[in-house]
Parts: sequence; C-alpha cells; structure tokens
Amino acid sequence: MMKRVVLLIQCPDQHGIISRLSSFVFDHGGNIVQSDQYTTDPDGGLFVMRLESCWEEGSLSTEDFERGLAVLATELDAQWEIHYGETPSRMAIAVSRFDHCLVDLLYRVRHGELQVEIPCVVSNHETCRDMVERENIPFHHLPVTKETKAEQEVKIIELIGGASDFLVMARYMQILSDDFMRSYGKDVINIHHSFLPSFKGANPYRQAYDRGVKVIGATAHYASVDLDEGPIIAQVVDAVTHKDNVESLKRKGRVLEQQALGKAIGAHLDHRVIRIENKTVVFD
Amino acid sequence: MMKRVVLLIQCPDQHGIISRLSSFVFDHGGNIVQSDQYTTDPDGGLFVMRLESCWEEGSLSTEDFERGLAVLATELDAQWEIHYGETPSRMAIAVSRFDHCLVDLLYRVRHGELQVEIPCVVSNHETCRDMVERENIPFHHLPVTKETKAEQEVKIIELIGGASDFLVMARYMQILSDDFMRSYGKDVINIHHSFLPSFKGANPYRQAYDRGVKVIGATAHYASVDLDEGPIIAQVVDAVTHKDNVESLKRKGRVLEQQALGKAIGAHLDHRVIRIENKTVVFD
Amino acid sequence: MMKRVVLLIQCPDQHGIISRLSSFVFDHGGNIVQSDQYTTDPDGGLFVMRLESCWEEGSLSTEDFERGLAVLATELDAQWEIHYGETPSRMAIAVSRFDHCLVDLLYRVRHGELQVEIPCVVSNHETCRDMVERENIPFHHLPVTKETKAEQEVKIIELIGGASDFLVMARYMQILSDDFMRSYGKDVINIHHSFLPSFKGANPYRQAYDRGVKVIGATAHYASVDLDEGPIIAQVVDAVTHKDNVESLKRKGRVLEQQALGKAIGAHLDHRVIRIENKTVVFD
Amino acid sequence: MMKRVVLLIQCPDQHGIISRLSSFVFDHGGNIVQSDQYTTDPDGGLFVMRLESCWEEGSLSTEDFERGLAVLATELDAQWEIHYGETPSRMAIAVSRFDHCLVDLLYRVRHGELQVEIPCVVSNHETCRDMVERENIPFHHLPVTKETKAEQEVKIIELIGGASDFLVMARYMQILSDDFMRSYGKDVINIHHSFLPSFKGANPYRQAYDRGVKVIGATAHYASVDLDEGPIIAQVVDAVTHKDNVESLKRKGRVLEQQALGKAIGAHLDHRVIRIENKTVVFD
Repeated sequence: MMKRVVLLIQCPDQHGIISRLSSFVFDHGGNIVQSDQYTTDPDGGLFVMRLESCWEEGSLSTEDFERGLAVLATELDAQWEIHYGETPSRMAIAVSRFDHCLVDLLYRVRHGELQVEIPCVVSNHETCRDMVERENIPFHHLPVTKETKAEQEVKIIELIGGASDFLVMARYMQILSDDFMRSYGKDVINIHHSFLPSFKGANPYRQAYDRGVKVIGATAHYASVDLDEGPIIAQVVDAVTHKDNVESLKRKGRVLEQQALGKAIGAHLDHRVIRIENKTVVFD
Repeated sequence: MMKRVVLLIQCPDQHGIISRLSSFVFDHGGNIVQSDQYTTDPDGGLFVMRLESCWEEGSLSTEDFERGLAVLATELDAQWEIHYGETPSRMAIAVSRFDHCLVDLLYRVRHGELQVEIPCVVSNHETCRDMVERENIPFHHLPVTKETKAEQEVKIIELIGGASDFLVMARYMQILSDDFMRSYGKDVINIHHSFLPSFKGANPYRQAYDRGVKVIGATAHYASVDLDEGPIIAQVVDAVTHKDNVESLKRKGRVLEQQALGKAIGAHLDHRVIRIENKTVVFD
Repeated sequence: MMKRVVLLIQCPDQHGIISRLSSFVFDHGGNIVQSDQYTTDPDGGLFVMRLESCWEEGSLSTEDFERGLAVLATELDAQWEIHYGETPSRMAIAVSRFDHCLVDLLYRVRHGELQVEIPCVVSNHETCRDMVERENIPFHHLPVTKETKAEQEVKIIELIGGASDFLVMARYMQILSDDFMRSYGKDVINIHHSFLPSFKGANPYRQAYDRGVKVIGATAHYASVDLDEGPIIAQVVDAVTHKDNVESLKRKGRVLEQQALGKAIGAHLDHRVIRIENKTVVFD
Repeated sequence: MMKRVVLLIQCPDQHGIISRLSSFVFDHGGNIVQSDQYTTDPDGGLFVMRLESCWEEGSLSTEDFERGLAVLATELDAQWEIHYGETPSRMAIAVSRFDHCLVDLLYRVRHGELQVEIPCVVSNHETCRDMVERENIPFHHLPVTKETKAEQEVKIIELIGGASDFLVMARYMQILSDDFMRSYGKDVINIHHSFLPSFKGANPYRQAYDRGVKVIGATAHYASVDLDEGPIIAQVVDAVTHKDNVESLKRKGRVLEQQALGKAIGAHLDHRVIRIENKTVVFD
C-alpha cells in the first residue's frame, strides 16, 4: 500500500524553489507523482506549488518530515500545509428546499466520484430528509427565523464544528452570518446561481431574464463575509434565448449548478485549489 | 427571379393573428418561406412575428400591399416594418486602434458571408487605413479630443447620416454622445468585451482578471444612451484559468468579440432581431 | 381550461401551405400559439410543419377537424399526425446496470420537467430495482442470455407493447433485435456514449481514449435496425485532455449522456422532433 | 536579458525523476519557471516531463549542460530534446484556395501572438499570393497534377526542407506522399475539417450534413503517413441544427478550423506538445 501526501506551499518567488522542494520530498523518501506550480507575476510575485507524492507504507516519518519542512519554509519565507491521504475529508452539507445539488452530491459520493464522508446534512426545511436518511446520513432540521438565526447558527456549529472539515452550501438559501463564519473557521463552498459577478443577490435567474442575457451560468466559490464576493473556484455556462422564461432558466441552471459545484468540490478535495487573496489557483 | 420580402410586426397578443397575417401575405401573392413568432407572455402579452416571403418578379405591388397592411395593422393595433430584399443594407463602421473586429468584418463581407455595403469606415486613428482602402472602401480619419468631440461627431453624422442604414462600433473606443445617438437616429451595434452585465465600463479584461473569473465573454448589443445597457443581441464565452493574464484574456477575447459581433450583425441584416423594450428576440 | 393540440404535417413544398394550414386551424376554432416550419431544399424539397394551437374547452370537434384535415392533406399530398395534449405520453424504460441516466430521468419526471407516465422499467439486472420501486413504478427483472434473448424480448413486448407510447434505452446494454423493433413498432430512443458517428459499437470511451481525442460526446438518437445509425436527435460534447483516463472519460460522459438523453426526450414529448429519412428536424 | 530553455524528456516511470531533473537544471544554473509531467500509467508506464527554465545571460554552457544531460539520460533510459528560446521557429505554410486559415495565421503572426518566422508559403494555386506578399513573405505557386505530383513535392522540399522547422497544412487540399513525409522528416501539422475520427476523407461537411449530426468540429493533428490518423493536438466543436446546410456548416467550420489550428500551433511552438505513439500530451 502506498501513502499519498499532498504538500501545498506558497512563498515569494525566488530561484531554485522547485528544485529544493522536489529534492526535499525525494530525500525524505517520497516519490513525486504530480508537481504543479504557478507564479502570480513572472517579475517577482508570489510562488505557489502543489507537490503530490507517494510513499511506501511506513517509510514516512511525519514528524521528521514536518520538522524539516518547517526549517525549509523559514528559509523560503513560505506558508505550507500537508494533507495525508489517509482519512477522507468530512463534508457537511447545508440545504434548503431545492434538492438538485444535494441529489447530485449524494450520487457522486455513492458512486465514489467524490471520496468524502458526510457527517450530516443540516437544513432549514424538512424537504430533503428522506433522500438523506436513505443514505444513512443524519439529517437535522433546524428551522430559522430572523429572531432565531443566531441561535440556529450556534446549533449548526455544534453539529458540524468539530465533525466536518468543510461545509458545502448546496443551495442553502440563508446567508451565514459573519459570526458563523468566524466561529466555524473552516472553508465554506457556496454555489451561486449566476456567472458572478453578474446578478449578485436574490433571484439571479429573474435578474438574468429581465436583462435579456443570451448566456447564463453558475459559480462555485468560497464563501466570504460578503457572500457573493468570495474567490471563484469554478464557473460553467449555457446558452439561452428569448424563448426561455424564468422557469426554463432555472431548469437549465439546475444542471449548471450541479456541474460547477461538483467540479469545485472535486478540486477542493484533491487540494488542487489554492487561494491567493480573492482569487483561486486551480491546478488540474 | 424571386423577390424576398420580410415583414416584421408586433401587437397585443390576440386570437387568429398568425392565420390572418399568413393569409394576408398569401392573398397578395406572396409565398411564405419562413414564419417565426413569439409571445412575451402566454397569458396575454406582446406578440411579435417575422414573416419571410417570396414573390414572383413583378407580382408585388408594394403600394397595394402596404395599404392593405396599414388597414390590418390598425385592426390589430400593430406596429410593422417591411424590408424588401433588393438593395443590401449599408453598414458604416467606426473603429479605433484595435483592428481584429474590423479585419473579421471585412473578411466576412469580402466572402459574401455578410451581404452588406460599407459606405465608409471612420476612425479616430490612422491605424486601420490600409486594410480598409485595400478593399476600396473610403477611410476617414477623424481625430477626437474632449474639446473637439461635438465637432467630430457632427462630421461623422455628415459622413454616415444619410449614407448608412446602421452603424457598427467595431471596438470604437469613444462613447457616442446622446446628441449623436439622437441625431443619427438609426441602429448602432456595439461590441463590449465582457459578458454583460459583468464588467461594464473601461478595461473589462483587467476587471475580469482582478475578479478571478473562470469564464470570460463578449457581448454584441444595440447601443443606447447608457452605452453598456442596451439590448443584448449575442453573447459568447470561453473558459479561462489562473494561468491567464490580462494579455491572454485579451487574446482569447479577440475571438469572442469577432464571433459575437459577426453573429449579431448577421441576425440584424436578416431582420431576425426584434427589440422589445430593453431585450431582443432573435429568431434563428 | 384550454386544450393544446399539436399538428405535424409533411408534404412536397408548394405555394401557400403555411397560409392554408394556419387558416384551416383558425377556421376550426384553434388559436395558433407556435408555428414552425422547414423545407429541406428551397428549390422544391420536402416541407414539414409543426402547428401548436390552443382551443377553448369543448370548442374542438376532433372528428370534424380530422375529417377536414384528411381532405386538405389529400390536396397537399401530405402525411400528418395530431397530438391532443390531454393524456401524457407513456414512456417505458429499459436499463442495465449503469443507473445514471435512469436516475436523471426519474428526477426530471418527479419534478415535472418531463411530463410523462412511466408504465414500468425493464432490466436485465436487479441493480436498479430500489430506485424505481421507490417511485411507485413497477420494475421487471428480465435476465437475458444468448439462448433466451428471443423469449426475453417477447416478455418485454408483453409488458410494454400496449402499455407504452415509446421506449427509452437508458443505457440498456443489449441490442434489441430486428424482430423486437418490428413487433414493438413504436419509437425507441437510445443514448449512445460517443459523438456518433465516431466510436460506434462497444466501449466507446475506451475507443476515445485509445484514439486520443480532445473532445468526447454523447448522442441521443432513434434506434433503428442498425443500432448506431438511427436519426440523431441531440448531441452534447465536453473537452478532455491527456490527463483523462478511461474512468474519468466515463465520469465526464455520464453527465453528457444525461444531458443528451434528457434533451432528446423533452423534444420528443413536445412533438418537436420530425424524422426525415435518416435525419431529424428538431424545432426549438 | 534572461534566456529561456525548454527541456523535454521521456523515460520509463521510476522513483525520483522529478527531483533529479529539477536538481540537475538548478545545479547548472537554471531557474525552473514551469514544470509539467505526466505518466501514462500510474502503475509503471512512460513518464514525460517538460521543464522550462530561465538562465542569466552567459550563465549557461550548453555544451556542459548537454553533456551532463546525456549522462543522466543514460541512467534514466530517457530520450530528450532541448529548445533554446533564442531563435523563433521557422514555420512553412502550404495552402490551396481556401484562405481563412492562412488569413488567421498571418494575423496571429503579425500581432505577435504566434512568434514564428515564415520562410515562405507554397500553394498549388495563385489565389493567396497577394495577402502573403503584402506581409513580405515569399509566395511560391507550385501547380500540381497527378503526373507532376512527385516533381512538385521535390520542389516543395527544396523550398522548405532546410528553411523551415515545421510545416503547416493550412487547408492544403493535396495529400502529401509518404516519400514527401520521409524526405521532409520534420513535423507537419494539418487541420482536418471534422472532429476526427468522424468524417475522414473528402468533403467532411457534406458527410456531416448527410449524417445529420448536431455538432460539428475541427481537428488539428500531426500528419502521418495515413493522413487523418495522426496524433490529435486540438479539437474544437460547435452546435448545428437542421437549419444548417452544407454552406453554413462550412462557414461555421471556418472559425473552428482557425481556432483548432491556432491553438495547436501555439502549443507546438511552446514545446508543450509531446507525442506518445499515436496520441499527444498537451501541457497547458
């Protein structure tokens, strides 16, 4: 059995980084199977790298490795993270009434396309209970009103705070508060039903219809405090015509949302997404 | 020789319109070859129709036909226009320094893909003179400054006001004033280098780069007083990644702009575009 | 309550058809809401038309209408069919082990996107029983071997021959015999997992991988005696790279198959697909 | 001034290659700016790598570097090639009467999008002379008949054999003989006007029309002895409908051909295309 390790690193661009990092991994016993890198500006910007390596079972002393890495990182003025591919990520899901993104995610998980554990699904509606429990995943109905929002979010934190590695808003139609975001402190992936930055806010398909666009889209992005402004991970689009009405835009959009969200989560799980300020590098 | 006639009509939706209009054309000797129609709202909205018909040479009395149509239109409370396919439309072009849209338009015209006459090309720069004059099309260099803008626009009107049926802004990097728009009074088609409504205004590729979108686009639209808000005719898009910089976005966008503009002009020339408030119906 | 009627007609191209048919429908009390037409060859080919009309409840005497139509059709040398929008079509489904197309169809039916009744699902495997019975749709497991094929097909005919209006092969991995096709005598829609005519036959994703194509696709088509040669209804495609292996091609293809099949069935149900020899006209 | 060097290498997959190659480049004074790699089979296949590095002017002893590389390559059982980015590649072009691919290539070269020298354009027709000579590129008219084909090909070899690094068939409608291919001995890039492997041979748009496909495409590939069977570099596609006729397919295809060919040549020039048997790895 081989062990898979993904090292992500970012630091000011400088000579010899690729060589030094490659050698470092090799010298500690790892075999690099995929090396990706990107520099924001060829004339001295930020350098980011993803190194995926394989290790013989038992050949990796994570303590040694991380200690060495810390030294190297200091020299390079680098930030880093390591992901050991032993345990699948734990993905919490929040959903409201529209079930298409949830249905698609459950399908992808069931068929091994997304290798992830789902500790639970939380929802402000009962609508999706059956399809979740059928997969032996706990479903928590947490209704929310303006008055109970703070309290409801605390409950969500209790349920997923320790039990999940990231949260997916699979058409969860509530805005998570700044308090929630700070308290959760982990990545939140949202699907927005427009090709951002067009049509932020509510009812984007209605907005698209009213503007008379000939292309619609969906955007998967990391949620930030300003919900529709976070770093974009994936966008997909489709052509529409004057024959489309708001209903048919929603139907076409359903597929776009599934595709954008599935693509973004897949990249996130493989640690192929790196955030640089308000943008993402997505290695494929 | 057959004569081609396109009738465009719009009126409140009501029973029997398609039948009455079809019969009207047939009874006057026309053979309908293409009939398209659209209703903004199935529960009583605006009805628009495009009827393309063929007539034996000499069989059409336009006077009779238009007189009858006026009567019918009054009954239907309809607005209409007729286009006799005898003389090609006259398309004036305004351009600045970026030549890719102009190059593409000239190619399409040269090869008969766009059947149109070009009375002249006006530009605030000398850059494109050669490629225009080579096609035996007059080229007018009309430099512009803030101070001379009004005067320059008057010169454009003198050159194209009577000589053209519509104007294409093929990356003309000046904003045409409200005075110009009113004075010209004909359709103006503009190509905007983003998927509107995203990234209005200047430097859309820079804006797209800064926002980190994963899809870029181009939008051909009728210019209105508020330049980037006119009815959209065609939009095309392409995928981009973090590897793209502003330069490569411009390069990819060049093709998108050519495609969107070519598509929009083709539809406009065939009278397949109908404007309803701030949106378009594009029959294909 | 309005009644919706779709009239499909095809005949040699001739003057006045659109006008005559429009008037015929109007004179019998119908209000045309959508008229589409196509001529295979502008210089005298085959003319096809789809007329969708609305009728006040009780205003349509189908007997009168059809009698009049028969007379008109004789004059025009036309073939025709009428679809009264009262009863939803009945769609039988055949499936094997791959469930993604079935899952998607059931979703579209459940959410009203495809308005259709499913009398039953037949399969040569047990795999999909649960997801079918959960929707209260009968599931019939009909295993098949080379020896029992004829017998098994007879059983399918017994189950769906009278009970369905058309059959969808939602990744049914058996070839239906000529005898079956003749005996069933209704439309059969198949999804082929390549952009036909490329990669006919077995294992198209493997074939695509081996050839090193940069685009894959899926094709929904009417099944004919020669399975992969029937008239194409819809094709969708996606980009791939050298990084894709046979498994990832299958994953990407899964979505393409769902899209192509859903699109084709939607058009078929609306009677927007007209077959002319080995090709289709798809009005949209 | 920095010097850009691209190293391509392929060898049996084995531990430590990435690290060894990275270190080798670094130890000789190069700074790696882009590292891409691919393994045909994770369980021991062929490993290919592209290392792009920057060197201070005067810091690279190509002799030393290549000598060291030869030693390393022997150890790894590797094949390699080095491209020094000093002199632009020399791209010969063959064309017949259709000029759209040529027009597009000349545009891209003129605007610096393709950084390449064009020693000459050869053609079996006079059609394109003007647009070529206007760019100060020699144009050679070499008519060809069945009888003079061998002779004509010898003349082409004389013109481009030593003067070019690769040849682009920009809709050159003649099949280059095996003798030519062997005699030229360098890469030949062809644009085929279909999404191969569909519609090989003559008149692909006619074939596509006759089959009634709903998607057409264009394929840029390395020419091989069997013309339409060489390794595919790029494919692009577009949707079509029953309304398209052979002429409109050609018009839509024109853009697809330009895009596929431009993309393929761009990748080829950057040494981002690696051939493995009959397939390509295209690093982007």
